[in-house]
Amino acid sequence: MATDRPSGSLRFTGALLITQDPERRVLRGDLEFRDGRITSVGPSTGDSVEETVDASGLAIVPGFINTHGHVAMTLLRGIADDRDLGAFLERLFALDARRTEVDLEAGAALGIAEMLLGGTTSFLDLYYGEDAVARAVSGLGIRGFLGWAVLDPDKTTQRGRPVDNARAFIERWSSDPLVHPLVAPQGVYVCSEETWLAARDLAQRSGTLLHYHLSETRSEVHNHERATGRRPPLWLESIGALGPGQVAAHGVWLTKAEIELLARRGVGVAHCPSSNLKLATGGVCPVVELREAGAVVGLGTDSAASNNSLSMLHEMRVAGLLQKHHRWDAAALSAQQLLDMATLEGAKLLGRSGELGSLEPGKRADFSCFRLDHPSLSPARPEAIVSHLAYSASDEAVDSVYVGGRCVVRHRKLELRDWADVRSAAEAASEPLWGSANP
Amino acid sequence: MATDRPSGSLRFTGALLITQDPERRVLRGDLEFRDGRITSVGPSTGDSVEETVDASGLAIVPGFINTHGHVAMTLLRGIADDRDLGAFLERLFALDARRTEVDLEAGAALGIAEMLLGGTTSFLDLYYGEDAVARAVSGLGIRGFLGWAVLDPDKTTQRGRPVDNARAFIERWSSDPLVHPLVAPQGVYVCSEETWLAARDLAQRSGTLLHYHLSETRSEVHNHERATGRRPPLWLESIGALGPGQVAAHGVWLTKAEIELLARRGVGVAHCPSSNLKLATGGVCPVVELREAGAVVGLGTDSAASNNSLSMLHEMRVAGLLQKHHRWDAAALSAQQLLDMATLEGAKLLGRSGELGSLEPGKRADFSCFRLDHPSLSPARPEAIVSHLAYSASDEAVDSVYVGGRCVVRHRKLELRDWADVRSAAEAASEPLWGSANP
Repeated sequence: MATDRPSGSLRFTGALLITQDPERRVLRGDLEFRDGRITSVGPSTGDSVEETVDASGLAIVPGFINTHGHVAMTLLRGIADDRDLGAFLERLFALDARRTEVDLEAGAALGIAEMLLGGTTSFLDLYYGEDAVARAVSGLGIRGFLGWAVLDPDKTTQRGRPVDNARAFIERWSSDPLVHPLVAPQGVYVCSEETWLAARDLAQRSGTLLHYHLSETRSEVHNHERATGRRPPLWLESIGALGPGQVAAHGVWLTKAEIELLARRGVGVAHCPSSNLKLATGGVCPVVELREAGAVVGLGTDSAASNNSLSMLHEMRVAGLLQKHHRWDAAALSAQQLLDMATLEGAKLLGRSGELGSLEPGKRADFSCFRLDHPSLSPARPEAIVSHLAYSASDEAVDSVYVGGRCVVRHRKLELRDWADVRSAAEAASEPLWGSANP
Repeated sequence: MATDRPSGSLRFTGALLITQDPERRVLRGDLEFRDGRITSVGPSTGDSVEETVDASGLAIVPGFINTHGHVAMTLLRGIADDRDLGAFLERLFALDARRTEVDLEAGAALGIAEMLLGGTTSFLDLYYGEDAVARAVSGLGIRGFLGWAVLDPDKTTQRGRPVDNARAFIERWSSDPLVHPLVAPQGVYVCSEETWLAARDLAQRSGTLLHYHLSETRSEVHNHERATGRRPPLWLESIGALGPGQVAAHGVWLTKAEIELLARRGVGVAHCPSSNLKLATGGVCPVVELREAGAVVGLGTDSAASNNSLSMLHEMRVAGLLQKHHRWDAAALSAQQLLDMATLEGAKLLGRSGELGSLEPGKRADFSCFRLDHPSLSPARPEAIVSHLAYSASDEAVDSVYVGGRCVVRHRKLELRDWADVRSAAEAASEPLWGSANP
């Protein structure tokens, strides 16, 4: 297993620093890090460093934090387009049941490579078979917050009780520097009260996050109300399940009372606009209202089977376009707020706001270097750089990426694995899955 | 002035050909062209060619056709974000009045470079000062369908009568192989009946397209109805202005009767979803209804000031997401339909369906070569390639681009101009515009 080996000490000089600090400063200056943590932002310390890089042509941006997805499903990109969530899941569940450790790891590596090449340095995942994902995380050098899917034992193809599998997964990976194991009750539609509370208790005892789907579709909400008399968030409240350290994905169909409830309980929301739109879930996550109520809202790509991209640049753009459109208000979700959601708010969702999400001394050295001479960032006016990141930047503008001070992408090449190997393993692993899906 | 010099004869062997032919075949085979036109698609002719390229790692896709924009405004990317169309135009019009031939050409070259690097081979533009754009078109090797903006003489900063300027522009560029000059009445809000009909007559006499904004915002529609008693399309019908060879941009606020009217008169629509969403125009272009009524609908990026990208891959994606969301129907606008809009339907809008929009013998050799080993196209299953183009592909996956058989992008580098020169000219030209706009 690879370790989070920092590359020692390094100074980028003369960069455009998109600090995402409390004042949201954009400034020309130096960025230094040592032993995996940022030591200086702006003026140079003058300390001797092992390596100095002229960064005058670069914008340095905190690594993006993708707060919801199923990375092993990247193998299934494009396999179930142009159909609603019900028909989508029917197709996907049939494939899920037939997956192997080999194809899970190949799919995860493919998705992680795509994320890293687009400037994402941390991601939150929900799936079974997370050991395969964890191996891919270690191999490629990203931070993985990996939620083992928990559901009722009679509703899964997992061997053994899912909550026991989650516990064992957490034990296996609890000391890894890059893998953060956690518990992920899949959703109220496949979890009894007993299952949900067992998952929540496991997360509390283990000190991990709890990640789940919530109120993604009308049918989820209405079916649950029919079955229990309560809409999903109110049902979770009634069983005492809501609390801090929880990330609810989607939150498309929420009432005003539910928005207040989630904010009051400290539950964060992972907004996944591309996936919601593509699956025609109909509603729109009330991002503005959630933020006004004090809830933390991050951005998630969901999986490549429903997005179909894992680019956080795409996701910022679509999130902004959707809220402006939905509210008939071009000022809704500004470029700065979109960048906040992709960085700082994501760090808060993960409970890592002291460690991730901005360029500040003491934080982990997780960041991307964007080429200021890329067409999608031109003209490269400093006063427009945040706009460019939110609305126009292409993944291709990401030149290099660091996670914990370790270079994981250098000049658009993966540093720790060969892209050709990642790709050929994914293509080979896709063959039996796709062959069976397309009669 | 550069000419449309074809590179002689060439054969790509073993490519994945996204033909966009009447059967929408995706097939492995060879693509040949000679003297700027495609000579064979699929099996090789066996004829001797000047150059043979192993294309087994490439998908060859018809060049994208961007059917609405203002390319010289690329200099203003990010200058007026997060405000509605009224406030946006107020800011932009003030800048327009101060622009020079030099900065118009620098901005146009910047935008054309971005379009070419994203696989766009033809674009339809609406602006004044189109000579500068035409020079950039010639210099970079794209096809430019350039509409000189016509509006009432008392509402413009153009010197002389705009319709006379349009006539002179058409005369100056009528024999250029890449520049297709045309007439562009800006919109009913700045054109009297006399101006509009003079523009229409000029287009008819010159045999050019007529391109205009139509029903983009509620206020445009309601103000016109208040002033004339008729909504814009019905007013145009009442003055006898509607007919074939016309491309109406936006068409966001259309009634059922107006949809039928546009279809009956053969007026095409350039759908610009990103711009409409970003400016919070509120409505949604009724793409499905227009297509069902028999109208041709293409895709346009609008300008980088309101999009803020010129990527047609972005635009396909957003167009699909928006219609699915708006109609609560995940099947609305399939991946294939989105690709059709970006290629074949665009060619129809331009009146060039016999020349552009697909890989078929006799058509112009306008196409892009996508790298099948790019993360955004992985797994590169042939049955998913159309999905990947519509929903996940990145501009970076475009390796090379040909226009009329001439290579204009080779391995992600502009072939006819140096990107560093294009960029530095744009950065220099942005300085006085941005300096004044940000007090």
